[in-house]
Amino acid sequence: MRAPGVHGRLNKAPEGFLERAAIGAVQTEAREGRRDFIRQAFAAALAGSVGTAAAQANDGDPNVLTLPEHSRSLGQGVATDGYGRPSRFEANLQRRQSPGLTPTRQSSVSFAPLQGLFGIVTPSGLHFERHHQGWWDIDPSRHRLMLNGSDDRMLKRPMVFTVDALMRLPSVSRFHFIECGANTGMEWGNVAVPTVQYTHGMLSCSEFTGVPLVTLLEMAGADWRRGRFVLAEGADGSSMTRTIPIELIQSGEVLVAYGQNGEMLRPENGYPLRLVVPGVQGVSWVKYLRRVELGDQPYASKDESLHYIDLMPGGLHRAYTSIQEVKSVVTTPSGGQVLMDRGFYSLNGLAWSGRGKVTKVDVSVDGGRHWKPARLQGPVMDKCLTRFSLDWAWNGEPALVMSRATDSTGHVQPTYAQLRAVRGRRSIYHNNAIQTWLVQASGEVRNVQLS
Amino acid sequence: MRAPGVHGRLNKAPEGFLERAAIGAVQTEAREGRRDFIRQAFAAALAGSVGTAAAQANDGDPNVLTLPEHSRSLGQGVATDGYGRPSRFEANLQRRQSPGLTPTRQSSVSFAPLQGLFGIVTPSGLHFERHHQGWWDIDPSRHRLMLNGSDDRMLKRPMVFTVDALMRLPSVSRFHFIECGANTGMEWGNVAVPTVQYTHGMLSCSEFTGVPLVTLLEMAGADWRRGRFVLAEGADGSSMTRTIPIELIQSGEVLVAYGQNGEMLRPENGYPLRLVVPGVQGVSWVKYLRRVELGDQPYASKDESLHYIDLMPGGLHRAYTSIQEVKSVVTTPSGGQVLMDRGFYSLNGLAWSGRGKVTKVDVSVDGGRHWKPARLQGPVMDKCLTRFSLDWAWNGEPALVMSRATDSTGHVQPTYAQLRAVRGRRSIYHNNAIQTWLVQASGEVRNVQLS
Repeated sequence: MRAPGVHGRLNKAPEGFLERAAIGAVQTEAREGRRDFIRQAFAAALAGSVGTAAAQANDGDPNVLTLPEHSRSLGQGVATDGYGRPSRFEANLQRRQSPGLTPTRQSSVSFAPLQGLFGIVTPSGLHFERHHQGWWDIDPSRHRLMLNGSDDRMLKRPMVFTVDALMRLPSVSRFHFIECGANTGMEWGNVAVPTVQYTHGMLSCSEFTGVPLVTLLEMAGADWRRGRFVLAEGADGSSMTRTIPIELIQSGEVLVAYGQNGEMLRPENGYPLRLVVPGVQGVSWVKYLRRVELGDQPYASKDESLHYIDLMPGGLHRAYTSIQEVKSVVTTPSGGQVLMDRGFYSLNGLAWSGRGKVTKVDVSVDGGRHWKPARLQGPVMDKCLTRFSLDWAWNGEPALVMSRATDSTGHVQPTYAQLRAVRGRRSIYHNNAIQTWLVQASGEVRNVQLS
Repeated sequence: MRAPGVHGRLNKAPEGFLERAAIGAVQTEAREGRRDFIRQAFAAALAGSVGTAAAQANDGDPNVLTLPEHSRSLGQGVATDGYGRPSRFEANLQRRQSPGLTPTRQSSVSFAPLQGLFGIVTPSGLHFERHHQGWWDIDPSRHRLMLNGSDDRMLKRPMVFTVDALMRLPSVSRFHFIECGANTGMEWGNVAVPTVQYTHGMLSCSEFTGVPLVTLLEMAGADWRRGRFVLAEGADGSSMTRTIPIELIQSGEVLVAYGQNGEMLRPENGYPLRLVVPGVQGVSWVKYLRRVELGDQPYASKDESLHYIDLMPGGLHRAYTSIQEVKSVVTTPSGGQVLMDRGFYSLNGLAWSGRGKVTKVDVSVDGGRHWKPARLQGPVMDKCLTRFSLDWAWNGEPALVMSRATDSTGHVQPTYAQLRAVRGRRSIYHNNAIQTWLVQASGEVRNVQLS
């Protein structure tokens, strides 16, 4: 998370005005073409905005009016290793582990820094991670994907594909979000995790490229009358297996993906092959995909019987509730940030639905008494993150900031009271309740739950 | 560029079938739940596809049928430095300098590896670079953007913004391509640069986030009756300055951007601020943006008088021809790749236009005698890359592969003959002619120009 006051989005606005004398110097320079004038004007502007920064920019001596070194000297040539990195000043924007949540190689997770991201694309270097037995950098030339049936008649031609063979087939590229089913899981217990990175950061969005699984099953001669479910299996040590209903596959939405944001998948996201199951919780997007089996019933694998299920108030549990329902969260302002001054803010955040498109996001700054519709940034895509924003003038009083998304099926994001009336309080998964951030009079923002 | 035969897209397809005995073992495993069977089935599948790879996957001994180590052991925990990197097997996919083209710190360029990219997003680590005096990693807390007028009345309130102040304002996020005006420049002289990385690789596409420049000029009280042009100036040692006509700014399209693909701009792409001028050649997307001046006439700066101009057949030159006209290129197959076998290929590439949307891409495999419409991958966005594809069964005969794009204004990409009839042969910039790749009977692909 960025430190406010350095270069976060919520720092004190500068005066924003330049002395007219300095402007006059610039105009003289524009007419006469003399560099001295513009150099002095810039130095004056720097001095006028923030004295200490100006001193630093001017090579340490506030009495010497010079341009910074980068305006006077030769910079670096092209990046030498052929693959660039973020600025050294952005080093604090990282995906991070939660100290309390499975920080082991056997079961690890890192969260995407949503508070510092823009638009809808998640940089692959900041994509959240969830590993069930650690991650591997698998040699793609040795990796295979097998398609088989649960009995002899399910597939006419069981097949084994190399990665190269898959990449020769017709592919599609689509923007989709992926959210872990356990995202916002701590909030079921009203833990009030401090920042949006930890409340909602098991969420990312990429342009995925791959081959529709339906294409592969058709090549293999699938018996569509009998085949009702697919089992997807990963090659890592957890042997992750998940059941996918055939309707999702026949729609063409499910992809055997090798590409993410223009390049090959990253190792920690399943390189060289992962399943992309738009709208469905991340655990079904099986990484290091090595086998797909077509069968006639759900597989009830260990990961489906014990994990990613919903414990209900009566003590029973729901299984196979894998669609990520409509949800949203304000990322600016959000927990851990500090509003340095009253005045204008561009309040913004992310909305998504596993059932379709986001059609509306309403925002409240008074704990849900009044709501205003936010602007949605286009393109608004199916089962994809949508960035929303709303102009907001903070008056310095405490404010309860919330967002409430509606999707193209008419689903509306519930309050915690509405969610708990149905689901109780003891779940871990599939929490899509409205998030509330309290902006305190001090400007400090913290996570609160309205009952 | 990836080495074909390792894991490029154009390698020999495997047999793609599994012995029925092995499939039987899998099915037995599915019924009986015994891991030995599936292990043997996988080993058989590997052995059946490629013997040596199977031997390697089985820890070196082809007689020992075991799963690879990553299926038997504990992997790595979450990435420790908080910012991920591509797989070690992708290290060869790099942006690269051209040995012959200004490989100096004073004037450097690196090309994006279009032959290995998917979809439309260019990973920021592979975004092309063009530096006029080297690149810098500028401290954003010391950087300022000044808005001034060419005379006292042009702006009512000349302003200086910190980066923080800009980031508090309402922002937009949009997907746009950026292409250097000199992209494909070597081809004017019929040099036939060998690969698409070097013919077309000064092209990238990102989701940019920033504040419309019109918003800032309105805050500053611009005199829209007198202000007709803006001068944009960068803070690096080249003091790059470019004229932007006010119509582009008033449309809201021109952004003062800080975000690229979800995170802050990369240093080599202008961190912390660059101008985004959709549809216009890259040199106008001024990096390290420090000043914007509103004036009433074009500025005829050094970069506009001498560079990025079009030398015409009669000896005169055209200036201010900055829109990147409709253009496309096939990236698979493309120069330097090798088709390992006849048969099916998903021929695909990129199309774009600085005037609007791509509406059609036609593909020819016989040097332009016959054309077929390609599929366009959605979303098709304004002044953005569009991925196209066409199913193609290569018969093993020499083939001349071409693509021809049409945009929403009705412009059609010209042949070299058409382009040269108007523009001659001595230009460097603004070459949007149809590219031809010759697939030889050997499968080797090379760059050719049809006269």
